[in-house]
Amino acid sequence: MHFEQPLALAGGASVRAYDLSYETYGQLNARRDNAVLICHALNASHHVAGVYLDAQGQVLPRSQGWWDNMIGPGKPLDTDRFFVIGVNNLGSCFGSTGPMHRHPDTGQIYGADFPVLTVEDWVHAQARLLDRLGIAQLAAVMGGSLGGMQALSWTLQYPERVRHAVVVASAPNLTAENIAFNEVARRAIVTDPAFPGGHFYRHGVLPKRGLRIARMIGHITYLSDDVMNEKFGRELRAVAGQLAAGRPYQFTTQDIEFEIESYLRHQGDKFAEYFDANTYLLITRALDYFDPARAHGGDLARAFAAARARFLLVSFGTDWRFSPKRSRELVKALLDNQRDVSYAEIDAPHGHDAFLLDDPRYLAVVRSYFDRVSL
Amino acid sequence: MHFEQPLALAGGASVRAYDLSYETYGQLNARRDNAVLICHALNASHHVAGVYLDAQGQVLPRSQGWWDNMIGPGKPLDTDRFFVIGVNNLGSCFGSTGPMHRHPDTGQIYGADFPVLTVEDWVHAQARLLDRLGIAQLAAVMGGSLGGMQALSWTLQYPERVRHAVVVASAPNLTAENIAFNEVARRAIVTDPAFPGGHFYRHGVLPKRGLRIARMIGHITYLSDDVMNEKFGRELRAVAGQLAAGRPYQFTTQDIEFEIESYLRHQGDKFAEYFDANTYLLITRALDYFDPARAHGGDLARAFAAARARFLLVSFGTDWRFSPKRSRELVKALLDNQRDVSYAEIDAPHGHDAFLLDDPRYLAVVRSYFDRVSL
Repeated sequence: MHFEQPLALAGGASVRAYDLSYETYGQLNARRDNAVLICHALNASHHVAGVYLDAQGQVLPRSQGWWDNMIGPGKPLDTDRFFVIGVNNLGSCFGSTGPMHRHPDTGQIYGADFPVLTVEDWVHAQARLLDRLGIAQLAAVMGGSLGGMQALSWTLQYPERVRHAVVVASAPNLTAENIAFNEVARRAIVTDPAFPGGHFYRHGVLPKRGLRIARMIGHITYLSDDVMNEKFGRELRAVAGQLAAGRPYQFTTQDIEFEIESYLRHQGDKFAEYFDANTYLLITRALDYFDPARAHGGDLARAFAAARARFLLVSFGTDWRFSPKRSRELVKALLDNQRDVSYAEIDAPHGHDAFLLDDPRYLAVVRSYFDRVSL
Repeated sequence: MHFEQPLALAGGASVRAYDLSYETYGQLNARRDNAVLICHALNASHHVAGVYLDAQGQVLPRSQGWWDNMIGPGKPLDTDRFFVIGVNNLGSCFGSTGPMHRHPDTGQIYGADFPVLTVEDWVHAQARLLDRLGIAQLAAVMGGSLGGMQALSWTLQYPERVRHAVVVASAPNLTAENIAFNEVARRAIVTDPAFPGGHFYRHGVLPKRGLRIARMIGHITYLSDDVMNEKFGRELRAVAGQLAAGRPYQFTTQDIEFEIESYLRHQGDKFAEYFDANTYLLITRALDYFDPARAHGGDLARAFAAARARFLLVSFGTDWRFSPKRSRELVKALLDNQRDVSYAEIDAPHGHDAFLLDDPRYLAVVRSYFDRVSL
């Protein structure tokens, strides 16, 4: 969807004109009241469910939507009943206008000149998309992690346009530790010599070294210590015949010795092939900035006085990046405002990643919540 | 102290000839039975206590030993009573032979050719130092974190030479998560273009970018989430007059916005000025490798059957890098062998860093333990 009218941003700049990539699943009903907007986190897109087919009708490999276990016909968010919309955020790198695109006036690739964005800006852009789709009010807005922050922001900025908000593995703001991890990842990218001021496309280079490090750091924080020990532990990489007799290790500092190293390097390599470095900076910054209580002297209950939606919040016991404690802060702020809140704390072992995984209790909670969303 | 006899290493290589930097505090008694060896962690040296004076007898700034709150006259480890030895490990960069030194035969700077080391190798080198100092048996060996691993290794490799082991904020091995953090830090260094295969001295460059990222990651893991929130929280860096009216942030992805970012960058910058990149790789690898249970089919109790020392173990409740759970594994393995173990779990808020800080309960525990070490 192309938008010609500039979008004014919280930072003072504006995006001159832009496209938003989106997908829809299911049918908008006659009363236009069964729409559910899905908001994505750092490394995801508008492609939330289903698969893509090639010209011969064959399923393309690795084309499954990122929340396909959650969304589809008969799934917890049932597309036989709801009209689901996935949208790629402004500044991302999966189709919507972002730093790798050209400024419509100058013809120059934005690169580091793409304006800094906030969660609130994304929500405004999403609201315009809904306007164009003729959707006045969402049955629900839903997201995990940074996507959950967007869902929260919807209930504050457009309280009359959201009946329900489903907020998974999220938080009212980032802790110092979260900001710290984001900052190290950003520094790895920005100090990569192949990131000349963020204008690497113009220079014909790509800061893959920095992106790899950023992704490796991210992956550590998405998993729990428990699940990492279970999946990898201290297992050595199988190097047939390479261990000298009687020696426990290869004794190398630069080569892979442990399985966990192999896994992290692989994740970093994959990510660096497709993700835009400026997008990484923009999205982590939007995470850092989100803090609805800030404008209310740090009082989260006052911040949520504006909300009118009903809420489902879900957190995961081993998620140390967006811990249950942070979701409980949200629950309390909502209860302080006599909001209708359901809250589930799932003792899944998978850390922050759990919000994307197949825990049956988690999926059942979401299913039963959507079952009571009246249309 | 210079050693001419080569030291054979666990990895199969050997160090041809080498120096060990060390300092001593207090007096070795007539029976030569009051020596306490202090083992250091990643970023520390033989200079464990006291200060240095300049030619005019003035205290040099920032010359305080890294465990000066713990060790000295009248302190928990009382140098009026004990003869304390600090030694810089082989491969480190504070005086002992390491990657920035020249191979005695070729005259070439070792760089990445310095052999890979283990905790066990360090202990053997330390034992030779004690031989030369005429110390047959230590009253105690003591260390925190990686230093604690060396203390544990002493009790296994030289059980008759250690009467007491004081093991603070340590672990029987690293978890997958710990190895993961080490690996990301190493990759940041190794993929820095100013780390040409580890021979940066020969090329006249220094991989400071990588070292900065490595140190920033390290600092996050040394602190607890709680203490980071308390010290920094979401405080913005004071930028007088730079915030546009009504705007909560500067809206920048590359400049500093939050205090925690300023702190981490400062720590990274400082570290990159003095720490050797190859040393960083070697020391983190020694951490990864330490695993006394490995040779016993993973059975920690069997591994510690060899130990004869008495033990004091200390852990800190908010230390998520070397958590109390890991110390309790050690306590159990020692109790399974009917060893004499004292164990204190301190609910200090400072995370892993607590082992270097002034928690009065912690210092009192160590003091009272050393009070019962008979001479």
